[in-house]
Amino acid sequence: MNLTQKIAQTAEQIGQKLSETEEMLITAESCTGGLIGATCTEIAGSSQWFYGGIISYDNEAKKRLLQVKEKTLISEGAVSTATVEQMCQGALQHGGDISIAVSGIAGPAGGSIEKPVGTVVIGCMHKNVEPKVATFHFDGDRLQIRQQAVFKALEMVLTLLENRK
Amino acid sequence: MNLTQKIAQTAEQIGQKLSETEEMLITAESCTGGLIGATCTEIAGSSQWFYGGIISYDNEAKKRLLQVKEKTLISEGAVSTATVEQMCQGALQHGGDISIAVSGIAGPAGGSIEKPVGTVVIGCMHKNVEPKVATFHFDGDRLQIRQQAVFKALEMVLTLLENRK
Repeated sequence: MNLTQKIAQTAEQIGQKLSETEEMLITAESCTGGLIGATCTEIAGSSQWFYGGIISYDNEAKKRLLQVKEKTLISEGAVSTATVEQMCQGALQHGGDISIAVSGIAGPAGGSIEKPVGTVVIGCMHKNVEPKVATFHFDGDRLQIRQQAVFKALEMVLTLLENRK
Repeated sequence: MNLTQKIAQTAEQIGQKLSETEEMLITAESCTGGLIGATCTEIAGSSQWFYGGIISYDNEAKKRLLQVKEKTLISEGAVSTATVEQMCQGALQHGGDISIAVSGIAGPAGGSIEKPVGTVVIGCMHKNVEPKVATFHFDGDRLQIRQQAVFKALEMVLTLLENRK
């Protein structure tokens, strides 16, 4: 199974789980720019479990739409555990039961020695529970980095849904 | 040139125009579920002109994230000129200079005699100017309807950018 198929399969599984529990997903995407939302809503009937999302591409959008703190963006950066935690929390303030947030450097520009291109921070969170956040380093070009980020994000949501039972 | 290539080319042209005028785009997507955002952010350097977006898939998200009025959703429906106008306006309240909004019935379910599957309402709006809204009827399956909606939406933005000069 290639990555595109794995992504589609994982999204389907998330949809089944959420439909069972009658819960809804909300996204907060930076470097993936809407790809997670697009992937979920490719599935017919996803309106039953996909609430919506925020594409917080610009840092101003992270602050205004997700209440990410200015001081966090300055001290930790947009691609950081602290920012992604706040994105997870900020998303759930708009609705939904489970949030998924992604912020990373898809390249080709924007990398640094500390945070090279391919660095992606992903978090997911169930309402009223602490967010789970992890940092990944993906190889490849812009498209490949974004696709891997989508897959890992969906995988994290599925793991969250499976592990609480 | 196939539709995927035409979509990518139109997004590139929008990026060039917006970079020239130092303006930013914000999206409000329902049936396309993040595809317009994903298309724009596929382009390296899009952070210069892509501000972000709202995926207002659920009607609750349209109300909470875009201030679409409950009474409009009840009287006109989510797939209507009035709703899409409000989505255009609601998006710009979060930032950006030009908004694009899409609401439609991608199918296979959800169609009616009055609004069959493939009905998609698309609007775009420059800050402080009245929104332009049009209704389309696309043929094909869910994927094809969504792709045509993305293309028409981007085409409307490009036309808006070209015609004001």
